[in-house]
Amino acid sequence: MLQTTDKHKISKLDGGTVLSPLGYKSGGLHSGLRREKKDFGLLLSDHPASCAAVYTQSHFQAAPLKVTQESIAASQKLQAVVINSAVANACTGKEGLSNAYTMRQWIAERFQLPPEYVAVASTGVIGEQLPMDKIKTGCDQVVPTRTGAEDFQKSILTTDTCQKAACYQLAVDGHTVTIGGAAKGSGMIHPNMATMLGFVTTDANIESCHLQNALKSCIDKSFNQITVDGETSTNDMVLTLANGEVNHQPLSPAHKDWSTFVQTMQLVCEDLAKQIARDGEGATKLVEVNVQGAYSHEEARIIAKKVVGSNLVKTAVYGQDANWGRIIGAVGHSEAKVNPEACEVYIEDQLVFSQGTPCLFSEEEATKALRKDKVKIEILLSEGGGFGTAWGCDLTYDYVKINASYRS
Amino acid sequence: MLQTTDKHKISKLDGGTVLSPLGYKSGGLHSGLRREKKDFGLLLSDHPASCAAVYTQSHFQAAPLKVTQESIAASQKLQAVVINSAVANACTGKEGLSNAYTMRQWIAERFQLPPEYVAVASTGVIGEQLPMDKIKTGCDQVVPTRTGAEDFQKSILTTDTCQKAACYQLAVDGHTVTIGGAAKGSGMIHPNMATMLGFVTTDANIESCHLQNALKSCIDKSFNQITVDGETSTNDMVLTLANGEVNHQPLSPAHKDWSTFVQTMQLVCEDLAKQIARDGEGATKLVEVNVQGAYSHEEARIIAKKVVGSNLVKTAVYGQDANWGRIIGAVGHSEAKVNPEACEVYIEDQLVFSQGTPCLFSEEEATKALRKDKVKIEILLSEGGGFGTAWGCDLTYDYVKINASYRS
Repeated sequence: MLQTTDKHKISKLDGGTVLSPLGYKSGGLHSGLRREKKDFGLLLSDHPASCAAVYTQSHFQAAPLKVTQESIAASQKLQAVVINSAVANACTGKEGLSNAYTMRQWIAERFQLPPEYVAVASTGVIGEQLPMDKIKTGCDQVVPTRTGAEDFQKSILTTDTCQKAACYQLAVDGHTVTIGGAAKGSGMIHPNMATMLGFVTTDANIESCHLQNALKSCIDKSFNQITVDGETSTNDMVLTLANGEVNHQPLSPAHKDWSTFVQTMQLVCEDLAKQIARDGEGATKLVEVNVQGAYSHEEARIIAKKVVGSNLVKTAVYGQDANWGRIIGAVGHSEAKVNPEACEVYIEDQLVFSQGTPCLFSEEEATKALRKDKVKIEILLSEGGGFGTAWGCDLTYDYVKINASYRS
Repeated sequence: MLQTTDKHKISKLDGGTVLSPLGYKSGGLHSGLRREKKDFGLLLSDHPASCAAVYTQSHFQAAPLKVTQESIAASQKLQAVVINSAVANACTGKEGLSNAYTMRQWIAERFQLPPEYVAVASTGVIGEQLPMDKIKTGCDQVVPTRTGAEDFQKSILTTDTCQKAACYQLAVDGHTVTIGGAAKGSGMIHPNMATMLGFVTTDANIESCHLQNALKSCIDKSFNQITVDGETSTNDMVLTLANGEVNHQPLSPAHKDWSTFVQTMQLVCEDLAKQIARDGEGATKLVEVNVQGAYSHEEARIIAKKVVGSNLVKTAVYGQDANWGRIIGAVGHSEAKVNPEACEVYIEDQLVFSQGTPCLFSEEEATKALRKDKVKIEILLSEGGGFGTAWGCDLTYDYVKINASYRS
């Protein structure tokens, strides 16, 4: 639930992608890493672009993330992002790091770019080395075009059941600026799949340092607020490119359209994040938890994520059970400030808990609401003005099935 | 994994219970709260006993916990503990609090005790008022005896599939001191079952303040280190009585046998905690995670609990999958200090991960080890001398089934 003040200034571009902003090409192909599906992708900007990225908080950070960080640190510019699926190149030691550098080098040579203009991302099984012959095939044969968005979106998927894309537009100095995104991720899975990846492109004119601030603030309220199973992978990364193809005054916090720009970027991130949560392993429903009246925005986000991540809430949603007890159980368990007597819980529009005790409510109505494929839980507190949202999915037999299957 | 220095001084009393220490009686009966099973219990000391307790950290603390805290605060002595199952008396407002006081009063009158010598505990459905006619039946008819341990153990159960008891002995000043315990808990469940309860009795001579310190230190390494589903209930409580029936010098940190006493109490708590984890909802296996070489004991415990609580590790154990990736995923995700290059992971006796990369190991041997009903995971770090253990269970179809079933 983005509390946008500038919603009227932002429009959603239905069917928009990472190629909707001006000056980008992409492509994807089957290099042989996966059996049949596309497994190798490239995103290319016509010109060097400002860039920003956030990475997994895991102590076990995969090789491609290290190489990408090095690229960005070198010049704060990127022009190409190369991605493979199937093999995550994580927990692969020195050989893995060397392979990630090689992958970067091959793309740099092919497109005549300095290596530090190339970012690298991988997703898939951890603990296995990249088959470099197939990576070479991908680097040699991938053809970025203005219409290659779908190929790119498909090439980054692993166990995802669907492609994930989003696009929104705003005006900056009267010019239309577009922000598009692609993402993948549905859990860490059979056998050891890693990763949530997000790629956001824009034709806005903005320095990398400001882009980084904008991205960081969006991430905290979007990708960082989804949970499928409470896990963090070795390869999680969200990367943003801004190539400045639109001719407006450079964006910075001093620009009158700054706030609208950040809000638009957040809508893109939030849209992608919800698509990931909805596509969680075994999930049948998207669950959205809104918290209002918390001590701070941060505490609101903590509570929302605690509730949406609770196995008991997740199974109750799967069972279409208006189980207020599990919701307040999760709220009570959080470290945030909560006065139980002043806590109200709504499942969809039904007040189910108030003043420390359960309310009379129509079980029938509640069950009907829980039958929908999107379920909203609202929690009203009285600690302050903090609000926040988190997204997740239900916990189903299929989650256990997918994750209990033997690897081989 | 208790690192006892005094293990040779401590002996386990097979078949021992809360009545093994001198000077206690207990009883349990069917008062009508549950359909057929016992639902009302009483634990009674011959004389006023020193006491100590720890309570749920949930913001939503149930009425009986408030009354028990008041009793203990009044005189630091307890002589009786009254417990009902089926209805937790949580989220019940003023009426619930008044009912808990009444329950305490009835027991006080029946056994001619000051009300503040009586503790109250409840477990079961939250959000419902206690049917006081049945509570009156229980208070009037429960008969504590020297042989009533089983009746008591049964009366406190809800969805547990088995009784939980443990008993250990040590020598203090050359006299045998006994510590016995009973517990219940297997998850928070259909519809909103609350609670882990633990009761520990001893005939040791010890002031309440020292008993509280001993209990607190044991809890952190036992009950607080188990997780079935990461939830904390409104009614969780562990209560200890020490009636001083054994004639030794009062125990305090200055006493030469203090350390042995604390270690014995910890063995009792650890034993009960493991029984609870093993009896987790839908569980087929007990999982024990040992962490060595962490920056501190606290960080070791945090990592151990993170791993044992990971849905992905839990499903892998259920699937008998030697999935090192999920283990290091959980280790990497924790906030504790971890150097990935110096982390070793063992599943049972097999080294599966070392120096940042997976090891060659026999999948066959590993799967065989995972077929056992107790699975041990060891994680060796190089940050310092901290060690810690956590216990949990696997995540199965039955967990989802139990918790997705509709309440009515």
